[in-house]
Amino acid sequence: MKVLIAIDSFKGSLSSLDCSKAITEGIKDVYENAEIITFPLADGGEGTVEALVQATKGKFVEKEVIGPLGTLVTAVYGILGNNHTAVIEVAAACGLPLVPENERNPYFTTTYGVGQLICDAVEKGCKEFVIGLGGSATNDAGIGMLQALGFSYLDENNKEVGYGGYELQKICAMDSTHVHHAIKNCTFKVACDVNNPLHGKNGAAYIFGRQKGATTEMIKELDAGLEHFAHVTFRELNKDIQNIAGAGAAGGLGAAFAGFLDAELLSGVQLVLETIGLEDKISDVDLVITGEGKLDSQTSMGKAPLGVAQVALKHDIPVIALAGGVSKQACTLNELGITSFFSITNEPMSLEKAMDSTNAFDNLRMTTKQLFRLLAAVKN
Amino acid sequence: MKVLIAIDSFKGSLSSLDCSKAITEGIKDVYENAEIITFPLADGGEGTVEALVQATKGKFVEKEVIGPLGTLVTAVYGILGNNHTAVIEVAAACGLPLVPENERNPYFTTTYGVGQLICDAVEKGCKEFVIGLGGSATNDAGIGMLQALGFSYLDENNKEVGYGGYELQKICAMDSTHVHHAIKNCTFKVACDVNNPLHGKNGAAYIFGRQKGATTEMIKELDAGLEHFAHVTFRELNKDIQNIAGAGAAGGLGAAFAGFLDAELLSGVQLVLETIGLEDKISDVDLVITGEGKLDSQTSMGKAPLGVAQVALKHDIPVIALAGGVSKQACTLNELGITSFFSITNEPMSLEKAMDSTNAFDNLRMTTKQLFRLLAAVKN
Repeated sequence: MKVLIAIDSFKGSLSSLDCSKAITEGIKDVYENAEIITFPLADGGEGTVEALVQATKGKFVEKEVIGPLGTLVTAVYGILGNNHTAVIEVAAACGLPLVPENERNPYFTTTYGVGQLICDAVEKGCKEFVIGLGGSATNDAGIGMLQALGFSYLDENNKEVGYGGYELQKICAMDSTHVHHAIKNCTFKVACDVNNPLHGKNGAAYIFGRQKGATTEMIKELDAGLEHFAHVTFRELNKDIQNIAGAGAAGGLGAAFAGFLDAELLSGVQLVLETIGLEDKISDVDLVITGEGKLDSQTSMGKAPLGVAQVALKHDIPVIALAGGVSKQACTLNELGITSFFSITNEPMSLEKAMDSTNAFDNLRMTTKQLFRLLAAVKN
Repeated sequence: MKVLIAIDSFKGSLSSLDCSKAITEGIKDVYENAEIITFPLADGGEGTVEALVQATKGKFVEKEVIGPLGTLVTAVYGILGNNHTAVIEVAAACGLPLVPENERNPYFTTTYGVGQLICDAVEKGCKEFVIGLGGSATNDAGIGMLQALGFSYLDENNKEVGYGGYELQKICAMDSTHVHHAIKNCTFKVACDVNNPLHGKNGAAYIFGRQKGATTEMIKELDAGLEHFAHVTFRELNKDIQNIAGAGAAGGLGAAFAGFLDAELLSGVQLVLETIGLEDKISDVDLVITGEGKLDSQTSMGKAPLGVAQVALKHDIPVIALAGGVSKQACTLNELGITSFFSITNEPMSLEKAMDSTNAFDNLRMTTKQLFRLLAAVKN
């Protein structure tokens, strides 16, 4: 019996690692000698660095960089077990949690630190980058990051523009001659699960500006800045950064990665699963176990378990999804590669009791054990 | 795929029949052509007549008899599909629910109606009897029933004694010459899950007298009556009705059946499963599904699902137990023939919501469907 466990955390109750441990124990209660492969799961958002470092036996790197407000912050990124792939969540260097609510102002917040993290990784020998967008406090189209990498954005006085989304409107020219050679040889894969263009009613400013602290007036200005930047880029480089699906992610960082660093924008789950090499490891597995805190219909469920299920489906491997709660709408998942789903809730109880870590761990282990007892019985 | 469903009711939520229906639908969602055998389950207590009549495609018989208080009541018993086995719950003719709380008095309550039901069934051609003890309002050692069958219990004036436990002390002699010949040729199997002797500190009066309305003083008197009756029986018939395990069941009806009608006293589940012929029908089944509202440890769980599991175990057939709630102690059931148990609770919720019939039906069906999807996947 060879089982692959790739389960998301049960948020607020069990980490992905705890879930894997409970399931492993439940399997070993029945198949003492089962071969079990576990992958902590992530979807390109928060937890992606941790999951990929754990999955590849990589390492964490701490680096002091310029934060979204222009002051120093300590950011953590990861270098994978292969020693040449860095994984960065941009929120570590320019994320909303780094900005107190009353200081949120995308006129000024910058992505500069993201560029510094990339430089640090390049200095450490990294050539491939896995980037998690999302959660940024910025609307600067990624020019802060690009400036840190050596790109130059000049105003009408031929002076380098400053930090923040407000500066975009001032850009008259751009220059990439001083970009470090090593950066040009790097490949970037970016986890991005939104399709927004850079500017316009569906662009970065209009869709994500308010949560970053912009007023209605500011949103208009920021959007104008993004549009201006797209025009200049097109004029100078003959590159259309407006119409890339996902250009508007993370305040325009999507556009910066795709337009200036030739990054590939991929679905977060797809990128994570590709990075951990799920497909290579799944082919000779008898059964896959995935899940998350709450299994819902296709649209509202976390994309990670579904991503796992779809890789398994391709190889015709049964997938069990385990969750704290399973909504009535979950039956749609059966058509998307999830063979069977089960709630670990062992009796009527409050949400609080269900989420108690000890209780959830025991119930996850017991449900797994009962399922594998059944499999053992029918396989004989 | 051939599945046998023998599931108890989820008390207060789904009947045994509803449970079977939900499970059947869940199986058919996956195995459209599955062969499914369903047995409503019972343990010799309330619901036994209904379950056995349904299981054997028998019929119900309504009969007016003398109730526990000496007034007429309408009792229902069953005649099984074979047309010669009657199934009677004694409570139908002498049960506590037939006596308002303020009139409960085992000095006077009688089992006469039970005898009348037996006579009625004999007249209808029945020769075998399945009797469910339990729930009686009486403490008359079954003499009421025996009188109805033609047995005679005489006082010092050679006069037939009256109804009720108080009369036992008056018995000086007994006579069975007028018992109908047909009765003597009948066989009786009695479902009895208590081991109490007829009299003494563990006897019928001391253990069950209070719930039937006896005071401490009355219990002493009633116990003395039972002891006296045992002595007379021994003297007259050389039969020891005191030391039969279960003699004290149903106010001494156990003693009456065993001592005067040569009845076999069996565990309720064993008798029910034997009567429905579970063992004959289980041998070529792929899977058995049982369960009840709440699965607990061995001792506190309903005996019916465990009885089913043990027959399946003998034939090495996997058993899935489904329940509304499964306690942490349920793991002991794995050693008693229950391959796997699952709660149908699909997420944290109140007991009230869990017991809502529609909700419980849907969850039972969905859990079944998910289990059979898994079985289908691993069997291919």
